[in-house]
Amino acid sequence: MNNGELLAAFKEKAVQIDAVMEADLAVVESPLLAEIIRHAIFQGGKRIRPLLTLLAASLVGNPPADTPRLAISFEYLHAASLLHDDVIDHATLRRGAETANTIWGMEPVILAGDYLHAHAMALASEVGGSTAMALIGRATAAMVESEFMQMHNARESLIAEEKYFQVLMGKTAALIAAACEAGIAHNQGSNEQRIALRTYGTNLGLAFQIVDDLLDYLGDPAKTGKAVGNDFQEGKMTLPLIKTLEKAEAKDRDVLIGLLKATSQERSRQIATAHAIIEKYQGFSLARTQAESLLAEAIAGLAIFGEAKAKDSLIGLAQYVLSRDK
Amino acid sequence: MNNGELLAAFKEKAVQIDAVMEADLAVVESPLLAEIIRHAIFQGGKRIRPLLTLLAASLVGNPPADTPRLAISFEYLHAASLLHDDVIDHATLRRGAETANTIWGMEPVILAGDYLHAHAMALASEVGGSTAMALIGRATAAMVESEFMQMHNARESLIAEEKYFQVLMGKTAALIAAACEAGIAHNQGSNEQRIALRTYGTNLGLAFQIVDDLLDYLGDPAKTGKAVGNDFQEGKMTLPLIKTLEKAEAKDRDVLIGLLKATSQERSRQIATAHAIIEKYQGFSLARTQAESLLAEAIAGLAIFGEAKAKDSLIGLAQYVLSRDK
Repeated sequence: MNNGELLAAFKEKAVQIDAVMEADLAVVESPLLAEIIRHAIFQGGKRIRPLLTLLAASLVGNPPADTPRLAISFEYLHAASLLHDDVIDHATLRRGAETANTIWGMEPVILAGDYLHAHAMALASEVGGSTAMALIGRATAAMVESEFMQMHNARESLIAEEKYFQVLMGKTAALIAAACEAGIAHNQGSNEQRIALRTYGTNLGLAFQIVDDLLDYLGDPAKTGKAVGNDFQEGKMTLPLIKTLEKAEAKDRDVLIGLLKATSQERSRQIATAHAIIEKYQGFSLARTQAESLLAEAIAGLAIFGEAKAKDSLIGLAQYVLSRDK
Repeated sequence: MNNGELLAAFKEKAVQIDAVMEADLAVVESPLLAEIIRHAIFQGGKRIRPLLTLLAASLVGNPPADTPRLAISFEYLHAASLLHDDVIDHATLRRGAETANTIWGMEPVILAGDYLHAHAMALASEVGGSTAMALIGRATAAMVESEFMQMHNARESLIAEEKYFQVLMGKTAALIAAACEAGIAHNQGSNEQRIALRTYGTNLGLAFQIVDDLLDYLGDPAKTGKAVGNDFQEGKMTLPLIKTLEKAEAKDRDVLIGLLKATSQERSRQIATAHAIIEKYQGFSLARTQAESLLAEAIAGLAIFGEAKAKDSLIGLAQYVLSRDK
């Protein structure tokens, strides 16, 4: 399959995943609660996590009929964490639309996140038993721990690459890895197969986030739905900047550090300056190379599976992550 | 055992429960996260939910050694919901101490609630398997649904008794009933025994909340740690007021409704007026009678268990709920 065919296949799967969520969410009683949850889930989103669970399960044979219900629990967990993140960050826009907290205020949105979170875990337990729950328990703990690490890091103006990856492990990679591993486990995969998918998911998650960081500087706002240099304006240390600070001469380094300590208005005015310095030290291409090598590692781990259609899809998904423009 | 001995026995059990939580919470890595969770859990609390799980399990034989770990998951769920409730209500005081959101702000407290919630569910799944998870899934869904019902009700100045009880079912009774039923289920109790404990827990939870409502009007602030008439001042329709509005003559009814539509300052000044009208129509004693009959029903359901020390404790706990002054 070429890239276009693969994306079309993913899109078709995403429609099926949406239908499973639609049916499952009929249990929600309060109209307002249902509305907030629907907004959180059906307002965009690529369904990467449930897709990974389904593909992973298919790697080791025909998946059990209830696999899609296990798969959607990962989309729910992702959506629940975004609901709370947006409350915490006072975010007003996500995926080009108003955030739930902007529309309904923080009170019902915190509760809706709690509902979705509990519902996801109950569903994962029902379908995937204690194995799925152990995976999810570890991933959700890692997600919160990484947010605390990030809060702690925010007090430091310079963050080493190691800390950046530690945060990413919890923030993005842990849940993606759990979604992959849960699919294998649900279809009775071996321990070796589980480890391979956990590694694949971890590396994919890390690369995904690095590409996000790159798109923030280099993406087309019309496609990403975000202003260029948004992360820099907020003073976020992402990989292109970290790579640059590791290599830059004192003079350029001082300019960047000065901007990181300045106001966000000042950073907003100086995005082109930052961009030029990162470019000068190849911060963008170094970050991209790291994403590429993470994805190569992700794909290499799939070698144990021999020929399988799902394997091609997982490889294609990894390649899509690198080539995506939004 | 008399009342004093019983309370001493409960206190001793609570100390053991605390030790199990202490040991379990060692997994938390971030110092700030650990601090918030410890504040949420060890700053008071009667440990009624884990106590109920332990007593319920003991009703049907010697409980499995891991029962305390299942029991604490209910205390965690309770603490997690209080953390989020206090953020939502902008509450500054709980159990006479500053709330976590007052000390640390809403951001880390929302996350700490999420952590505790996920950790509780993972623990319950590990120890109690899919049975415990199904019970917790239903209870947590009911808790959130009832908050949405309450938000909806808050827009109406008059609430019927039926709606009041519907909210209570989710807010307090659902988790207490789940804590009771999970104990029986974990010790391989029969379906009949599970239903008996679910009924006991539901009725105990409802009665517990009614007594809370009564203490709000009639309690000693030095013991309850809350100002007298706090609920009325906030315009909350609790059972004594609902019972009174059902019976009051037009003149008195109009006074109460007028106050419910007034400012909270005005209500604060007129607490004695409200108190006198409720007294006139026996709103307090009607509410107390209802609590008594719920507890009688709770106890009656335990008849199927014959002679058992744990049964005496459950009966004693129900009686304590009625007689408590804080």
